[in-house]
Order: sequence, then C-alpha cells, then structure tokens
Amino acid sequence: MKTYRYAERMSLVKPSAIRELLKLGADPDVISFGGGYPDPDLFPLEKLSLVFEQVIKEQGKSALQYTISEGLSELRLKLIERMKRVGVTCGLENLFLLQGSQQGLDLVAKMFLNKGDIVITENPTFLGALVAFNPYEPQYATVSMDEEGMDMDKLETVLKANPNAKFIYTVPTFHNPTGITMSLCRRKRLVELANAYDVIILEDDPYREIRYEGEQLPSIKSFDTEGRVIHLGSFSKILCPGLRLGWVVAEKELAEKLCLLKMAADTQNSTLNMYAVNRFMELYDIDEHITHIRKIYKDKKDLMLETLRVALPQSVKYTNPEGGLFTWLTFPEGVDTTRLMKERVLPEAKVAYVPGSTFFPVKEEVNHCRFNFSYMSKENIVRGVTAFGRILKEYC
Amino acid sequence: MKTYRYAERMSLVKPSAIRELLKLGADPDVISFGGGYPDPDLFPLEKLSLVFEQVIKEQGKSALQYTISEGLSELRLKLIERMKRVGVTCGLENLFLLQGSQQGLDLVAKMFLNKGDIVITENPTFLGALVAFNPYEPQYATVSMDEEGMDMDKLETVLKANPNAKFIYTVPTFHNPTGITMSLCRRKRLVELANAYDVIILEDDPYREIRYEGEQLPSIKSFDTEGRVIHLGSFSKILCPGLRLGWVVAEKELAEKLCLLKMAADTQNSTLNMYAVNRFMELYDIDEHITHIRKIYKDKKDLMLETLRVALPQSVKYTNPEGGLFTWLTFPEGVDTTRLMKERVLPEAKVAYVPGSTFFPVKEEVNHCRFNFSYMSKENIVRGVTAFGRILKEYC
Repeated sequence: MKTYRYAERMSLVKPSAIRELLKLGADPDVISFGGGYPDPDLFPLEKLSLVFEQVIKEQGKSALQYTISEGLSELRLKLIERMKRVGVTCGLENLFLLQGSQQGLDLVAKMFLNKGDIVITENPTFLGALVAFNPYEPQYATVSMDEEGMDMDKLETVLKANPNAKFIYTVPTFHNPTGITMSLCRRKRLVELANAYDVIILEDDPYREIRYEGEQLPSIKSFDTEGRVIHLGSFSKILCPGLRLGWVVAEKELAEKLCLLKMAADTQNSTLNMYAVNRFMELYDIDEHITHIRKIYKDKKDLMLETLRVALPQSVKYTNPEGGLFTWLTFPEGVDTTRLMKERVLPEAKVAYVPGSTFFPVKEEVNHCRFNFSYMSKENIVRGVTAFGRILKEYC
Repeated sequence: MKTYRYAERMSLVKPSAIRELLKLGADPDVISFGGGYPDPDLFPLEKLSLVFEQVIKEQGKSALQYTISEGLSELRLKLIERMKRVGVTCGLENLFLLQGSQQGLDLVAKMFLNKGDIVITENPTFLGALVAFNPYEPQYATVSMDEEGMDMDKLETVLKANPNAKFIYTVPTFHNPTGITMSLCRRKRLVELANAYDVIILEDDPYREIRYEGEQLPSIKSFDTEGRVIHLGSFSKILCPGLRLGWVVAEKELAEKLCLLKMAADTQNSTLNMYAVNRFMELYDIDEHITHIRKIYKDKKDLMLETLRVALPQSVKYTNPEGGLFTWLTFPEGVDTTRLMKERVLPEAKVAYVPGSTFFPVKEEVNHCRFNFSYMSKENIVRGVTAFGRILKEYC
C-alpha cells in the first residue's frame, strides 16, 4: 500500500524536531540537562524490592489479576487522605488512578474537545500536554506569565475573546518549563474567572511536593465551588516514574466519564504496581522519603544556580524556582537556542538542554531554554554548566 | 456548573447496562462465568516474586526510571523471535509494547477513524473493541460467522457496499465471544480482499497460544503483502493480566505513528513490568508455563462442555472451541438471555454469564450468551452449569 488513509487528526501528530535533536544528546559523553528525569539514586530500591516480593507472595492472586478500571481502592483512600493536605475533600467517586498523569491529559482532552475548540494555556506550557491535546485538533490561546504565574488580566481578555473555550490548562506549582509558582491570590482569581466564563480548569500538579523554599499553597482544586477543576497528581517525582502511577480528582460526573474513557483506552493500570505502592505507603513513611528527595534536589538546584551565575554572561536571565525540576533561561532577543545547541553547545561543550521554542503553543519564542537539575550528578552540573557558559561568553 | 460542555464523542461513551448487571454478580455467593479472567492459581507467584526482587535490586535505577515509549528493547527482541513462529518476520521498527492489547484497539482507532468512518467487524464481536472504537464515532458494518469464522463472501459484499471502510477488526483465533477459529483458507482470503478493497486489517490475537486441539494456524499478519495488517498480542492470558503488557506489530510507518500516539496517551508502559517479564523469559521457560496453562484449561473446557451437554435442554446449542476461554450458547429464538439472567438465573441459580446482545455492534440478537471456563474452579463449573440447567429446563 502506497498511502494510508489516516484520520484527519494525524496531520497534527508528528515527531518533534526537538526530540530528534535530543536523540543526538543520547551520546554517553553528553551531559544532558534535557529530560525531566528524577535522580535514580533516590529510588528506594531495597524497600521496593521487598514490597514487590511480599505483595506477589502474599497477594499475588489478586495483585496479578485484572481489577476495576478505577484501580486499587486502598491506594485511592490513601490519596484521598493526602488530598486533604492541599485543601481538597473528596471520595472514591472522585479519585481514580491513571497510567501517569500524562494519561489524564489525554483523557480530559478526549472528553471535552471537538475539532477547533479552544484550549487556554500558559505561555510557555508543558510540551507533553500539547502532544496529548493535539490529536483532538484544538486551537490554542495563550496567556503570558510573570513571577506570580499566569497573568489574570490577560486571561480575562483571552476568555472574553474566546467565549467557547473548553478548558484552561495550568501547571500552577513549579511550572514546566519555567519553574514559576502561581501565587495564592491568582489561584483564587483563576477559579473566579473560570466560574464567570463557564470554563473547566485542568490543574496539572506533579511537582507540588518537591518544594525547597516557601510555604505549600492550596491546590486550585481546593477553591473549586462549581465542580469545574480537574486535578492531576503523580507518583513519578515523589517515588519513581517507572511504575506509571498518577491520579485524577474531579467532580463525580466528570470522574465517571473519564473512567469510562480510561476503560476504553487501556482497561486499567498495572494491578501489581498499585498493590506495591499501597504496601510501600503502609510499611514506610513516604513523607520522610519526599523530605530526603527535597534535600538532595535543593542542593542540586542551588549548585546549578550558583554555577549559572558564575558561568553565564550577565545578559542571560534565569528563574529561581521554589521547587520542581527546572530553571528557565532567557537570552537576549536574536539568540536562537535551537541553532545554538545544534551548532555549538552539543558539538563543542557536549551539553544538551531543551530549546524553549517547543514549549510555545502558538507563537514560538526562540531565545529561551529549559535546564533540568534533578537528574545529573553535582559534578556534571558544574562541568556541564561551566562548559555551556564558555561557549556562551564567545557567542553572546 | 449544571451542565458540562462535552465533546460530541461523549454521546457514545456510556456505562454498559450489562456491566451494571454483572455488578450484581459480584456477590460472593454468585458463580460467575461472566469475565474473561485467567485462573489465578496458574500465576507463577514464586517465580515472579523472585524476578521482581532481582530486577529491582540489580537494575532498579533503570527499571524504575522513564524509558522510551516503544518499551524495553530486550523484551521486544524476544517477541520478535516469537512472532516468527506465527509466520511473521519483523524488527524493532515494527514491534512495540502496549498497556495491554486493549491500548492497541484505542490507538488504531485514533489513527484511522474520522467521525462516521466504517469499521467492519465479525458479528458478534469483542465488546472491549467496540468500547475502544466508539469514542472515535465510527459506524459499524458486520459480517456473520460460521464454524470457519468470518464469512468471506459476505465480507466482500460489505466491502463493496462500503468502499471507504477504514479497517476490518477480527479476533481470528478462539474468537471472543464465540470461541470460533478462522480457517487457514479464510485467513488468506481475508488478506486478498483487504488488498483488493484497500482496507486495513486489525488482527487481535490474545488467545492464540491457549490451544487445546488442532494445529496452530499462521497469523493473518503472516499473509500480509502490502503492510496492511496490524497484529496485537498480549501477555494477559499466557502469564497474567495484572502487568498490563501487550504488543503491536505493524508496518514501520504505521508503527511509528502508533507509537507517537502512545507517547501522547501515557508516555510508556511500566518500565519495571517490562524488565520483569524480560527477566522471567530469561530465567524460565514460558512455553513450559503455557503448556501447563493449556492442560488445566482444556480440562476445565471439557468439564464445562460435558456439564452443559447433560444439564441443558437439547434446544440450546453451544460452540466447542479449540482453544481460548469461552463457549457461546445459542437459545431458541424468543429467549432473551438478559431477562433470563436478571429474572431467574441470577436470583435463583446464583449464576452469572455475559448476555450476548452486548456483542452485536448493529442489530442486537438477544438469544445468546457467553460462558467463560478459565476462571471458575472445576467444582463451581459443575455446580454453576447444573444450577443454570435446572432453571433452563423449566424455562425453555
């Protein structure tokens, strides 16, 4: 067959040029600040090994069998308890497990988007969300950010201009890619605006527990008065990503429909992984584990920022995130970080990052890039950032 | 918010009445032949427990980390080897891992279906496939079956009448729900017709290794000359379903696009589960394990068919499958198996099955039902079928 007759949506499903570029960075000699990987030295291997062994021996007949699409109730009950800490009271009818919070992005888009429907995002926004939304053929409207997150006056302008917008997508806490956290007052205003303009909020919150400074803020879901905030959480950063466990919290009617879509898409998560994480939380103190992660990542972040301060020309700005995995660099206008990486940084400094253009849904800005500080060793953070700085001082 | 503004596709995403009925069967006193569950006594608990313990201890830093969306190459190479047995030569560019083969149903529909596009299925067909396809708003055209599977003359008529049909969905081996296997000659004819009418074949083949009698047949994919057959396989019946591991084999261009959709939908499968199954296949002989499963299920099938023979009135017919998990019962016209179950079988005999109407995509036939024989103990097979027979002898 010469040409396949694809669905129209496939015109929006393309390999990303950035991913192709990052593949060049898979060379083991390259120091990559590209991915959003956690530090594997922090995975609690002994404990997880024991937990899996026990669960299979003691509960294997259930833990290896099919289960309901909502996932293991005991684990959901633990997450319901944890949601109270971020101000959310919910029940089993509101919370179910996902194949990573990425699956929540797919299912929410599937539930709401007709072709051409408007999705409002921060500018820039998480690339994985655009990848999940694109097959449903939305159009994007973007809202710029400052140090307090999404600009609410600009959001109101966008809402007025797009009265049929379906949802606002936000990563409010340690935003990907910028590291910015939405302030308390803007969180409240966001819900007020969503109520006024009858639009859903999709709150993607995988980083919230990885905080280094400042106080925990209530989730946007905690201010929801009309059942219009959908909250996504994840074990990927607080335990490990390889188990693919996330969760969604939503109004009962929405949760039921999302769960029907989950059943259609993959039946259920790995039963075993749900049993194992549940057992892990029974046997061990996950908060203690998270405290440990925070300490290690804070050291890495401080080291990266200090090294950036010394290594970079003054004209390059970068964010100082209160938590999460990323800092966001802004270069003088005219600098194209994709070209810079391809032509100089990768071949000469053997350093990789994610060029910023990929995070802009509508109008690309080329003079930014995202640096991850969780994955690389301290030694490589210093080596990589210093080598990057040397190139830049010649270039800028 | 009173009413949510869903996507149009959500009008086709509804809880199934049958599932609601089967929930009534969750009463522990009920003997359920409803699900398609494997027998959990056959899960190799000791071996899997050891494998998970080892993999986490020895390879945990990789096995708990993110990986590529295609999944673990070592495991894919083993599956590429196994595909040779069913007549398929393929490489890493053709085969990748899925969150159960159910995910393949979702992704293939997502790749091909515009609203209103025609999907051709056997009549009856697998309910889970309809559930996966429905959100993409297809229309269905059905082809009746006889003891050799899909009727190829009728398929040609349907293809002529629907020149823009996108794909033919088939469960060729130990079909769900009927247990029927498509003959060799029809497999070849199916590919010829697909070539002639430029249509994709989606071959869903989760049961093929669970054969009790007769010879293995080559997969339909093995007759593919034009890159138009997409093959789905699964570990759910040959190992256990709770790890959620399936795979897809397709022409390179299709595999690449499907993998982009997988990345968008859930990033990847559980890294750990892929490492563990790979290690299991290195340490143990999975074929020996499958031989054991076959023996146990054959005994159960023989027992169920013998009990049905004795217990049922002569007017009730049932299939004698050469493999798989199901037999399909056909009652005299006028018998409604949903009403029968709700009004008599469930309350009086405490027995559950899946009423057949749910498996018909277009025109429901109410006088069938599906019985599973893999999950229940031999004792319960005899007790349940006998109790069912008693009700029937009064009813028919």
